[in-house]
Amino acid sequence: MSFVTHLECSLCSRILPADKLQTVCGHCGKPLFARYDLARVKSAVRREDLTSREPTLWRYREILPLPFRTEPVSLGEGWTPLLPVRRFASVHGSKAVFLKDEASNPTGSFKARGMSLAVSMASWLGARKLAAPSAGNAAGALAAYAARAGSEAHLFVPRDTPLVNVTESRAAGANVQLIDGLITDCAAEVARRAAEEGWFDVSTLKEPYRVEGKKTLGYELAEQLGWHLPDAILYPTGGGTGVIGMWKAFEEMEALGWVSSKRPRLIGVQASGCQPLVRAFERHEPFATEHAGAQTLASGLRVPRALGDFLILRAVRASGGLMLAVTDEEMAAGVYRLGELEGVFACPEAGACLAAFGTLRKAGAIGADETVVIFNTATGTKYPEFFEYYPPPNRL
Amino acid sequence: MSFVTHLECSLCSRILPADKLQTVCGHCGKPLFARYDLARVKSAVRREDLTSREPTLWRYREILPLPFRTEPVSLGEGWTPLLPVRRFASVHGSKAVFLKDEASNPTGSFKARGMSLAVSMASWLGARKLAAPSAGNAAGALAAYAARAGSEAHLFVPRDTPLVNVTESRAAGANVQLIDGLITDCAAEVARRAAEEGWFDVSTLKEPYRVEGKKTLGYELAEQLGWHLPDAILYPTGGGTGVIGMWKAFEEMEALGWVSSKRPRLIGVQASGCQPLVRAFERHEPFATEHAGAQTLASGLRVPRALGDFLILRAVRASGGLMLAVTDEEMAAGVYRLGELEGVFACPEAGACLAAFGTLRKAGAIGADETVVIFNTATGTKYPEFFEYYPPPNRL
Repeated sequence: MSFVTHLECSLCSRILPADKLQTVCGHCGKPLFARYDLARVKSAVRREDLTSREPTLWRYREILPLPFRTEPVSLGEGWTPLLPVRRFASVHGSKAVFLKDEASNPTGSFKARGMSLAVSMASWLGARKLAAPSAGNAAGALAAYAARAGSEAHLFVPRDTPLVNVTESRAAGANVQLIDGLITDCAAEVARRAAEEGWFDVSTLKEPYRVEGKKTLGYELAEQLGWHLPDAILYPTGGGTGVIGMWKAFEEMEALGWVSSKRPRLIGVQASGCQPLVRAFERHEPFATEHAGAQTLASGLRVPRALGDFLILRAVRASGGLMLAVTDEEMAAGVYRLGELEGVFACPEAGACLAAFGTLRKAGAIGADETVVIFNTATGTKYPEFFEYYPPPNRL
Repeated sequence: MSFVTHLECSLCSRILPADKLQTVCGHCGKPLFARYDLARVKSAVRREDLTSREPTLWRYREILPLPFRTEPVSLGEGWTPLLPVRRFASVHGSKAVFLKDEASNPTGSFKARGMSLAVSMASWLGARKLAAPSAGNAAGALAAYAARAGSEAHLFVPRDTPLVNVTESRAAGANVQLIDGLITDCAAEVARRAAEEGWFDVSTLKEPYRVEGKKTLGYELAEQLGWHLPDAILYPTGGGTGVIGMWKAFEEMEALGWVSSKRPRLIGVQASGCQPLVRAFERHEPFATEHAGAQTLASGLRVPRALGDFLILRAVRASGGLMLAVTDEEMAAGVYRLGELEGVFACPEAGACLAAFGTLRKAGAIGADETVVIFNTATGTKYPEFFEYYPPPNRL
């Protein structure tokens, strides 16, 4: 039906069956990964076969968990542009910098990838009442895919979430609750009510398939760059599912013979006001400590604790990469620099990566000749509050 | 260099050369159309050749005006999803309804298509200071493509334009002026200042190439539907360049042997508070009279006068289609119905088409078995003012 063989705990390696609804490892509480019969995948599809396939993440169907005969819950997600940003590169004395522009996804953000997979799998396995906490964009995406599936979405977001995320979620028929607190408080509320309400919790990494959607970022980068992975990737890291997913993709692709063993350095960027992973990275710790008093206007980075912390830290370290934090002011400056030079209005979280790129180029941590991919995880137009606080200059 | 042979006035058929900057017909002041050597296009590309090309509007390179060796000013525009909307169709007793979802374009709207072409051509022909009036989305798109080209953008928008359009334009380094008035007043301001400032006016249909970008909508519909055009198309009609462009595309494709002589009925939808084309259609007039006191919160439909009025009316009539108007309340209801059923948060202008579809189905003007395409021209997330005024229900 699919080439998934089983689920495996990402920490303790316990095995669970993939043909029923699963959450986290029953033993250690950590995320589960879908594992595939890669030999069968390899004989079923060659990377050359992909060229003429549809421009969505479902082009990688053989390495996705949904049974082949089941129609995905899709709105056209994935296969987003990888834009060469030459003027931006040139300003920083670089030669080959690309922006992976996730704004063109349904609901305008990278969250569409994970939710398309999670809702497709939940529907197939019979879960029709879905719930999740969100910093904003995940809410909009879950609302959209739940509606597309004919399922219910119950969303819990911090009261200071961008209003547009609430509106788009309600426009898609979702039940949205505003919570006085952070995303961790929202997650606690979902966990508290899920059992009695009969909700299936699709919090990131609390079910096995959002990360399968996110891993397609790694497949796309490889395919778009002619199956040569870049030297470095800058990724804004809240829950970190993209980093975890790409790392998984690189391993799978190497096993399939699609890429070499070379790995990009993964550079995770957080906000100065909420940098649990940066601190753990610097202290050489395997897990992160919750960031007390988290504060940043970049809602996607206002994540004081991530279930996949150890996976992010592992991937970043194994890749020879690093974690760093930037201020909200620097994020805004990064967004406006890119906007002026390339015309893309990026989200604040991407602004963090754009600022970090400048810092790392100056410090020599990224070389002039290196091929670098910077992620724009969402459109800037969904962050009016941020850009009212740090307004753009009226330049001309 | 390209297969364009000349420009031709869309009203009086006067011929102008295509190898220099042109605006409108010097004789009658009406829009110019690019004409191609279709025999050469035909021998250069077969429709089957397109399958493996890049998923942007530049896949139709042979029938676009930019010289083949010139790199387009591109952000990944076009080749947007054509989503089957089965649940929405079913509610209306229909079988085959598709949503052409233009929200996945750069800057979140269909305006990216025209601006990618217009800015590409202006850059090639040496115009580096670009100006335009806009109801909102065109501003964001011109700002983006001008920045991408390294050119200046000078934008004039009504003061009640959604703030996010101003922000995204300024984020891309554009000069944005807020005008007390309508888009027609903004256009007058551009016209007044263009000569002394050295600006090239890229108002829609005041230069020949935005419509070339928009026509790719017609090519995409044909290709995505296996080279069978639908029975009817519902399109929100402000300036109407999409209708004009698609009609041009249908004629070109027939000449190329890519589609038959069958034409979809073009159904143009306007706002009750601004319906100059509906009135002209009903009065069997060839041109429209400016709509006095235009009022609608759907900014893209707040267009009291369109330079291409006669072209829109001609195409709609020749297609056997019609024009109709709906209220802002109906637009909101249309948006929320689609959202709940399919997960897409459409713009108010698309809401007008969604509402009109219901009306026409009830009246029997669209048959149950007909294949229908409804356009979502932009993401709903760029219209916070509209959706605050008509807030979504919190349903669950």
